[in-house]
Order: sequence, then C-alpha cells, then structure tokens
Amino acid sequence: MKVLRFRWQNKEAWGRIEGEKIFPLPGHEATFGGNTELSIKEVQVLPPTLPTKIVAVGLNYRDHAEELGMALPEAPLIFLKPPSAVIGPEDNIVLPQGVGRVDYEAELAVVIGKTARKVPPEKAREYILGYTCFNDVTARDLQKKDGQWTRAKSFDTFAPIGPWIETDLDPSDLRVRAYVNGELRQDSSTTNLIFPVPELVSFISYVMTLYPGDVIATGTPPGVGPLAPGDVVEVEVEGVGRLVNFVRGE
Amino acid sequence: MKVLRFRWQNKEAWGRIEGEKIFPLPGHEATFGGNTELSIKEVQVLPPTLPTKIVAVGLNYRDHAEELGMALPEAPLIFLKPPSAVIGPEDNIVLPQGVGRVDYEAELAVVIGKTARKVPPEKAREYILGYTCFNDVTARDLQKKDGQWTRAKSFDTFAPIGPWIETDLDPSDLRVRAYVNGELRQDSSTTNLIFPVPELVSFISYVMTLYPGDVIATGTPPGVGPLAPGDVVEVEVEGVGRLVNFVRGE
Repeated sequence: MKVLRFRWQNKEAWGRIEGEKIFPLPGHEATFGGNTELSIKEVQVLPPTLPTKIVAVGLNYRDHAEELGMALPEAPLIFLKPPSAVIGPEDNIVLPQGVGRVDYEAELAVVIGKTARKVPPEKAREYILGYTCFNDVTARDLQKKDGQWTRAKSFDTFAPIGPWIETDLDPSDLRVRAYVNGELRQDSSTTNLIFPVPELVSFISYVMTLYPGDVIATGTPPGVGPLAPGDVVEVEVEGVGRLVNFVRGE
Repeated sequence: MKVLRFRWQNKEAWGRIEGEKIFPLPGHEATFGGNTELSIKEVQVLPPTLPTKIVAVGLNYRDHAEELGMALPEAPLIFLKPPSAVIGPEDNIVLPQGVGRVDYEAELAVVIGKTARKVPPEKAREYILGYTCFNDVTARDLQKKDGQWTRAKSFDTFAPIGPWIETDLDPSDLRVRAYVNGELRQDSSTTNLIFPVPELVSFISYVMTLYPGDVIATGTPPGVGPLAPGDVVEVEVEGVGRLVNFVRGE
C-alpha cells in the first residue's frame, strides 16, 4: 500500500494512492468530505511524514566507499538532519548564498511505524511503517570545511522526502537512482548496503529511541554531484516511485 | 520570570515559580484546579521545553579551546542532539553499556520564543524566550572514534535541561559551573564565549529555521570530565539556578 499525505480544501489528510486515485484510509473517510476518492491532480502532495528526527547514515554503499577510496566503516556512521529541512514532492530546493557546491544524494528512506528502543535486527521489520525516497542534499564545500557535517546538511529545504510511503516492500534488493534534468546520475542497489536496513534500525535503536514517523536515510550510492538553479532533480527507489524537486537560487 | 513546566494530578502544566511557590501563567489558571498557587514539592518538574531540535555548539569558550590547545574556530561549529535525548531535573543520566567514558558538559542554553529565520544579531533577543541550564552529555571515546559527534551525543538521557526558563536575563556575563558530587569541576563565564548568544542565534537562523521551544546549547567551558554510576551532577547558570541529575549504569 502507498500511503500519501496531502492538503485538500485547506485540510491535511492521509490516503492510499493507486495510480492517480486517492482513497481514504480506514477511519479517515470524513477527511474526504463525502467523496469516495480524490484525484492526485486536485490535491497538494505533502511530505509523507513529519519526523521528530532524521537519522542519516554516511558511507553505507560498498561501491560509493570504493569510489571515494575509503575503508569500509566498522559501524554505521550516523548524523542528524533537522526536521526544519523537510520539504515534499515538487517543492523547491533552495541553494543558500555563498556556500559553494550543493550536491544531491539519492537514498532509500525508512519510516518508523512504532516506538523502537533496543530492537534486535531480526525484529526490526515490526517497527518499520514503510519506505520512501530521500534526497540528502549536502553543501559539499561546507561539509569539508566544518569537519562536522551538520551545518552542510541542515539548511532549510535540504531534506526532500516522498512522494509517499510504500508499506509492502522488501528493502534488501532495490534500485536507487538519481536523475538531474532527466539524466541518470546515480544507479545502484540496496544489495550494496554495507549495513542493510534491519541492522541500521537495530543499531540506531540501541543509541536513541525512534518514534513513529522518524526517518532513517540509509546512505547514498556513487555518482553524487552538484545542483544548479533551474535543475530538476529526481530520486527513484524501485517499488516506491520518484521524488521530484526543483532547484533554485536564494 | 522563571517559567516552569510540571506534572500535577496527571496533567502537564506551565507556571511561574518564585522560591518554592508556583503561580499560574496568565490564561492558564484552570490547570491549577482552583488553587491560586502550588508548591514545587507537590509537583513533578518536567523539562521546561520540548524542542523540535537542539542545536549545540562545539568549542565555543576561549579558555576551553586554550585548554585543548586548539585554534579558535572561524565560524560556530554546530551539531544536533535529538529531542529523544531530553530529560528533566532530577532524572537519571543512563551510562550505556560498552561505550567507555561518558562526560558532563555544563552549558548555558537558549530557548527560542518565536520562529527565527535569518535574524541579524542585533535583533536576536526578540526571538529568545529565555535561558536555562543544559548538560551536553557526551560519550567521549565514541566521539573520537566516530569523528562525527552525533552518536556520542545522542543517547537517550544525554540532554538534561532545566530546571526552568529564566526570561529576564542578560546572557553576556553569566557564570557557568558544573559540580560532581558537590565538587566544583567547571567554572567559567559567558564573557569567554567566542561567539556570544546573539551571534549564535543569528548564525544558526541563517542555516535553519528555529521554532518556538528549540534549544541552542552554547558550548562548554574547561573542566569536562567523566561520570560514574552513583554520581550527582549539577549544572549551574548564574541567574537561572541549578540543574541536578543522577547518574546510573544501564
């Protein structure tokens, strides 16, 4: 099932999307104002989750680590992006003035479904609501300058997510791709993840309690590159769909 | 005014504290159940804010940078702590198993009062609700091992804050102290801040939108050190008060 969050008639609502049709989730019929279905063309699609935190993982693709000539990490290298950076499908990524190069990073995102604390890997799936596309937008020059990655990854609009959450998906072998202006720039598979999804959920849950709606961005494959005003950037995750965003200058 | 958040008769409420007496905030009289005042002895004091994010600043005291033999940073070095790490006064700091040394770090915390985006330093005070005490608890060995500071600073219970928010305070010359088991361990003044409060609020607001309740932890002075199960750790900020927490093993 694909779960969509949207605004319609000035109200926020959730629905199940099939093709271009949106149906109410059980118990949420009232938000459809008497309609049995809506069209995606008549609603504004919103970010599919409002996380209390976004935990992202650095250097988690074997092929990306090789590309960078870096040793494989012994444990997941985690960092946080603030909820204030979240934008939804077709929203603008804004390139801040004076920060130099800003890159796209296509990622599979895990959305947490129930409170997770010290979850063993074999139980991780019980705590996952589903999967979506994520773009870990990064001010590359600042990332190198600061050493700590936080500032480079925390600007407003630097956490595009969506377009919806696919709840029925095996995350172990999914293609993850990025396109800029229609050109394929990243193309790998989650089979290349150094720490697969269940290990990530478990590892992070032993550090910090994960709450429903929280997001784990699982790392990016080779082929990251810069964005320029006017670009259209797309993140595609097999079995989910495509997250489209527009790039503009400040 | 000192603003306190507390639980009383299974309800959460806010009040103004004077000595040991709590008075309702204007418009919140109903939460006091007909009482004109409550005693701090009959309530459970809660963290005074529920931030959407905690932005912390590394290496922001001249005397601490000298102690570490490090060059002064050119710009504030920021990192994030997750809201899931927040605990309140007299709550337990839990030392996770197998992470090695865990340190206290006494800090002045700024609590944001209204949405702040691209605020110049001279306007920063308009966006500040007030000030409180913060302990930036850090797993020191993990911090060095990971390089990125996130994991080391994100464990549950690693963000003690409180006991209340002082709304009438000039942050430019306040003593900041830490005590462990009553012994003074850190003792400096915000006059030693490399980037004072208005500059921090401004700098961060140019990166990310700050929301009401968000916290900026302004950095720690010299004298950080390890905690052990059974310790009582206190952070004191002049003009605010003392944040007391207990340390226990997992």
